[in-house]
Amino acid sequence: MTRELIDQIVIHPGRRLTAKLVATLKTTEPDSFETTVVDQLDLTFEGLAGDRHAGFTRPAGGREPWYPGGVEIKSGRQLSIVSAEELWEIGYALGLPPIEAGWMGANLVIEGAPRLSFLSRGTRIFMPSGASVVVENQNAPCRHTGRAIATRTGRPGDELSFPRISRRLRGLVASVERPGAAVAGSDVTLQLPEQWIY
Amino acid sequence: MTRELIDQIVIHPGRRLTAKLVATLKTTEPDSFETTVVDQLDLTFEGLAGDRHAGFTRPAGGREPWYPGGVEIKSGRQLSIVSAEELWEIGYALGLPPIEAGWMGANLVIEGAPRLSFLSRGTRIFMPSGASVVVENQNAPCRHTGRAIATRTGRPGDELSFPRISRRLRGLVASVERPGAAVAGSDVTLQLPEQWIY
Repeated sequence: MTRELIDQIVIHPGRRLTAKLVATLKTTEPDSFETTVVDQLDLTFEGLAGDRHAGFTRPAGGREPWYPGGVEIKSGRQLSIVSAEELWEIGYALGLPPIEAGWMGANLVIEGAPRLSFLSRGTRIFMPSGASVVVENQNAPCRHTGRAIATRTGRPGDELSFPRISRRLRGLVASVERPGAAVAGSDVTLQLPEQWIY
Repeated sequence: MTRELIDQIVIHPGRRLTAKLVATLKTTEPDSFETTVVDQLDLTFEGLAGDRHAGFTRPAGGREPWYPGGVEIKSGRQLSIVSAEELWEIGYALGLPPIEAGWMGANLVIEGAPRLSFLSRGTRIFMPSGASVVVENQNAPCRHTGRAIATRTGRPGDELSFPRISRRLRGLVASVERPGAAVAGSDVTLQLPEQWIY
């Protein structure tokens, strides 16, 4: 009976955590992967207006090897969210000061959420403005970012060591669930959904 | 150190399962909650063209008590997916034959995925056409559905017993990730993502 199978599943209830949105960043140069610190972001249903990741859809890439390259798919990667603590951790592991969020093309930097990169899919982040974003996935490091980091650190070896060291520390990708302002320095609420393992 | 905290997380690797798409359904009467069996569905980025759940956004409702009622939010509920086995299970628990998927407003009926309602957020369902949908959440029964079921069964008490009995058996809500055809009777692949508990 299905009901008996269900009774074996351990359901971890949803819960709320508080954290701080310490920085907001966006693309300022059209050809650049990097982002620049701004006072606040205007979140729309399509993400950040004018940003290279804005839109409901995007071309499939190396992170989706199950699709032919370049076919249009639902985005799920409008925003990049990183952890202040994990930026510190990556830098430490590389023998450097904390890595700057803008070097990785991040849009939101959050402090006070332990192991942020493991926040569950479906976690909502509520801003004081009423805006919210929803976590779509853990972000995966790529060599492209490694190259950008190596340019900044001036150490060619970081092109390969960055992706290795930042694995599981690279933050999250998210979509806008409710539009509005995301203001640097504000407190945010993280609402974790129920969790279980299938 | 964050790395040590991460080493404590149990990561369940992604995997693939096969199952069968035994039925496809869509709304045929504009005012009705119910869906009707069709040979195939044309999945678009907005869901099912002309369907009441089509679109990238929708008004927040009772399932999102953290938002003011009616404010526009990202949809996440374009499609309703139910399990053939769970329809049987709900019917059995109500002392009835299997509940019909159309009575619940479902769009896709899948057979052969045990405890389908617990498929993780982020699970992809690939159709032979190349189309895919991605699981957004477990669906929650509501009294509205209970009322529709009670009308069909002719037993007023089912308005309340249906939501209670169908809890955790009510299937999933999903979004279209890649457009294309979903054809009744075809084999589908379920691609589970990595899972962990935060």
